[in-house]
Amino acid sequence: MTTTRVEQAPVDLAATRIRVDGVLDRFLRGKASADPTLPGEITDTLRAFLFAGGKRIRPLLCVLGWHAAHGATPVPQPVIQVAAALELFHAAVLIHDDIIDNSDTRRDHPTVHRALTALHPERRDPARFGRHAAIVLGDLAMVWSAELLHTARLTGRQLRTALEVLDGMRADVMYGQYLDLLTTACPSGDLDRALDIIRYKTASYTCERPLVLGALLADPAPGIPAALAAYARPLGEAFQLRDDLLGVYGDPARTGKSNIEDLREGKHTALVALAFTHADPEQSARLSAMLGDPSLDEQQAAECREILCATALARVEGMIRTRSEQAYQALEQAPIPLAVIRTLQHLADDAIARTG
Amino acid sequence: MTTTRVEQAPVDLAATRIRVDGVLDRFLRGKASADPTLPGEITDTLRAFLFAGGKRIRPLLCVLGWHAAHGATPVPQPVIQVAAALELFHAAVLIHDDIIDNSDTRRDHPTVHRALTALHPERRDPARFGRHAAIVLGDLAMVWSAELLHTARLTGRQLRTALEVLDGMRADVMYGQYLDLLTTACPSGDLDRALDIIRYKTASYTCERPLVLGALLADPAPGIPAALAAYARPLGEAFQLRDDLLGVYGDPARTGKSNIEDLREGKHTALVALAFTHADPEQSARLSAMLGDPSLDEQQAAECREILCATALARVEGMIRTRSEQAYQALEQAPIPLAVIRTLQHLADDAIARTG
Repeated sequence: MTTTRVEQAPVDLAATRIRVDGVLDRFLRGKASADPTLPGEITDTLRAFLFAGGKRIRPLLCVLGWHAAHGATPVPQPVIQVAAALELFHAAVLIHDDIIDNSDTRRDHPTVHRALTALHPERRDPARFGRHAAIVLGDLAMVWSAELLHTARLTGRQLRTALEVLDGMRADVMYGQYLDLLTTACPSGDLDRALDIIRYKTASYTCERPLVLGALLADPAPGIPAALAAYARPLGEAFQLRDDLLGVYGDPARTGKSNIEDLREGKHTALVALAFTHADPEQSARLSAMLGDPSLDEQQAAECREILCATALARVEGMIRTRSEQAYQALEQAPIPLAVIRTLQHLADDAIARTG
Repeated sequence: MTTTRVEQAPVDLAATRIRVDGVLDRFLRGKASADPTLPGEITDTLRAFLFAGGKRIRPLLCVLGWHAAHGATPVPQPVIQVAAALELFHAAVLIHDDIIDNSDTRRDHPTVHRALTALHPERRDPARFGRHAAIVLGDLAMVWSAELLHTARLTGRQLRTALEVLDGMRADVMYGQYLDLLTTACPSGDLDRALDIIRYKTASYTCERPLVLGALLADPAPGIPAALAAYARPLGEAFQLRDDLLGVYGDPARTGKSNIEDLREGKHTALVALAFTHADPEQSARLSAMLGDPSLDEQQAAECREILCATALARVEGMIRTRSEQAYQALEQAPIPLAVIRTLQHLADDAIARTG
């Protein structure tokens, strides 16, 4: 079976993305026109947020999972709609996350709570209205993402499978968010906790579950879901470890995000945990004093970076390397079409070596 | 068929409630013990909130809907689990609503964001942590409520039906919440908008959908879902119109809630809309100046109540009367067991005539 699949054409991610976006666009248009009592700003704001950008990593992995199990035939519309539901759920997560982080922009556009604030300058406290309306809009995006899934015309078996995977996926990201909140501004040497957060928020929620979900929709040959999971888990961890490094050492012009905010918030990452473990008492005391200080200035940030570099940076790079190797190795042994293997390799290259 | 059902025993709501609470308790215990990396405060806080009280109106209506269509045989566990899922979803709605309303207590217990604040006095800004953790905990309750539904061992047909009803129900409450936010502190004579909010948040979300859902799970005889909806919609409207009156004229010792907060927030209700429509220019100007003023004192509140009484109170009582009659009339004609009719009549009596 594998041999015949090797011949198939490579996976067209750009075309997949267009189809996913088409589903989201039609869904929101349908909602806007279905009920005249619904304020237009609900769907307008959500559409603006969804189409401001984003890598669509979860939908693409879902479709790649389907290809891995089924080959390169045209992807059925129900699978595309499930992939779109993942993106709408993720929009809900980001909308709430941006309230929590008090972020003004995402993808160079206003975050949802800021956009809703700007729509209502006449109110007594527009910022408060914006935050509260964004809580509700995030909830609605979550509710609508479930509807997109339920109306995807899946078979009974596919529907049960999808619900089971998604129940786990949706809970995982919330566990990760909660642990993130608990540890933020309380940085420590607890590497396990830092890795728990990475596993929930990225390895499982962003990589493993979407990829495996796509495969399960195709009624996969035995071994395929496990092989995909063995690739996705270390890849997700490597991706997030890189992301955390870019949050401290990245070039904001390339990453599009600040390289001082994580330090000011006192985000608990593997980098920070390893630093506390390997720092001398003086370095530890300096880090404790500076991490999580909202008024941290550039000079103090530079001192943080220096201590983190001296104690932990090379160790994190080593962890990224180990995990990349695990991901590549899992791919080599995976009983899936070569075209899909190549695409997954490219994704891994991009995720791990990126500078932005 | 109706004749045989007339003989059946009345519906035991207290026993139903105990079974629903049992499902919620076992589910949360299962979550607490399933994953050692999950902080215990997540399930502890959620359990304390769920079991602090609450009328369980949505689960009870769901089970009554099942009785209406199926008779008084023991209610199967899957139906009880669906009913419990409704309550867990409602907990999510309340957790977020309490953040939005900045409420300290609900059912004489701390709200979730206050409880989480109190758990972390060591943090730099415990109140901010509490609000943010409660956003995530509300999201998790929503995710878990879906899992409760999906794992209820429904048949394929029941599952599809339940998902369809719930997609509508969950969206309706969010539409209502959004409209509520938009109109709060902007009171006006727009009665239609006030009734839209009531229809989404109470008539549909609280009454019609849960009751009809229960009936649909039992594969009902034709006419039953429509008959139940014809009862539930006006009942829900009457219930909320009464609730809005109690929010202004109720005795806090009996209602357990303030009778000045709705005025201070400038909540847009049918009472307020009718007042603006029928007030003379002087009364209108006074109302505009006072409603939505967070510092409204007792004397001003008394003046508000007087104007609302002179212009709108009797009209709202009339609306409650009309809707009650519609609900009772729908029941009389409903092809459902007499024991269920009696229970639904009692519920309506309580909802409409209550003073607390």
